[in-house]
This record gives sequence, C-alpha cells and structure tokens, in this order.
Amino acid sequence: MIGAKLRNMATSEEIRKVCSEYVTTVEAGDFDATAALFADNAIVDDAVSGVPAIGRPAIRAFYEGLAARARGAFEMMGKVNVRDNTAAFQFKVVIDGQIVGEPIDVMTFDDHGKILWMRSYWGTV
Amino acid sequence: MIGAKLRNMATSEEIRKVCSEYVTTVEAGDFDATAALFADNAIVDDAVSGVPAIGRPAIRAFYEGLAARARGAFEMMGKVNVRDNTAAFQFKVVIDGQIVGEPIDVMTFDDHGKILWMRSYWGTV
Repeated sequence: MIGAKLRNMATSEEIRKVCSEYVTTVEAGDFDATAALFADNAIVDDAVSGVPAIGRPAIRAFYEGLAARARGAFEMMGKVNVRDNTAAFQFKVVIDGQIVGEPIDVMTFDDHGKILWMRSYWGTV
Repeated sequence: MIGAKLRNMATSEEIRKVCSEYVTTVEAGDFDATAALFADNAIVDDAVSGVPAIGRPAIRAFYEGLAARARGAFEMMGKVNVRDNTAAFQFKVVIDGQIVGEPIDVMTFDDHGKILWMRSYWGTV
C-alpha cells in the first residue's frame, strides 16, 4: 500500500524539508548543519567518495572535505519524490558556470526525520 | 573505487542503452519489448503498484496492465547516471498535456545487461 502509515514515521513534508536543507547546507559548505541532518549511525554512500562514511563523525568529515575542495551551485531539477520513508531527487551541480553533473540522491529516513542512509548516483555531463 | 570493473559486468554504455529502451518501450506500450529487458528472476518494485512483481511473467503482466490503463509521453530530465551496475534517471510523465509526475527509477543490472531489480520513486507534481 503506497503511503500507508505503518508506524510513526516521518511525513512526506518533513522528509522534503530535510532534503531541501541538505541541498542548501551542502551548497553553502555548512558541514556542521549538513551533518546534523543525519542520524547518529547513518551511512553516506556517495559516488564522489566511493567509500561509505559510517556514523555522524565520519559523515561530518566527508562533508567538511567536500566543502574544502569544491563549491558548486545546486539547482533542483524536479520535485523531491517521497515513497514511504525514502526520498529521491535530482539536481544540477554548477561550478564556474559549467554543469559538472546531475546527480540523483536516494535517502532513507528514520522515524524522527533524520537521514539514516544516503546513496548518490552521479552523472557527468 | 568509482567505476572499477570488479567483474565482467555490463558497461555504462550498455546500461544507458537499456534505460533508454526501457523508457521508449514503456511509452510505446510495447510490454513484450519492455519485459525482454529484464532478467528471468528480476524484481520490479514500482511505486504505482506498491506490490513488487517478481519474475519476468509477473513483470510482463505489470507492464501489460500499465499499457492498458494509461499512456503517457515520457521526457528524460537529465542524463542517466550509472554507478557500477546501477542506473538512476528521472523523467517527466505527461498525460493529456499535463505533467502528472517526475518519477526517478533506480535499476540494477546483471552481468549480461539485463535489469535485475528496479525501484521507482514517483512524485506527483
């Protein structure tokens, strides 16, 4: 059953809000704010790294490294699609006026609206 | 390691070609051609159905049902992002001139370039 409330899980609105904050904080290089969106024991399986970051300290370090390295402007390409406790969305990454990729992120949320698992699919253009 | 060839898996080009054929054949309502893109024991976990279709006969029936019910025009929103043996892409679904959704499909491929697993995230607009 689509969208059935099986338990006290985060709502679609809560999930969409966190996805939006994720994109905003990563774009701003605010890695503390990004890390705070994740659950303590979350997993970030990002295509850029290739090695999953497990737990919030490792996740914070991953985004700190990203912020230190490259800063891009992000542009959502469509709405955030939410299915039960999982969201998927695509966005453009623009660096120095060039589109360098149109990644898709898939994120699963815990019942408190924290990101529990993220996997990104990165496409160079 | 991104894109490492761990085994004799399908190439990114092969995977992108199948994703393109998937979109084209579903749009055309050619459910035989769609079903042929899947492995024998594949799983389709589509947001529209909510109940996974397991094995090619069930998958064929699922797409036959879709073809009989509603026909939309599909428009890719970006490139197909391939990470190892998995692809993710987003497309618009237009019915009677209205955008009814911008789903994201995630597909994992077997070593022969057949779709082994598909999960869709559907967003109403």
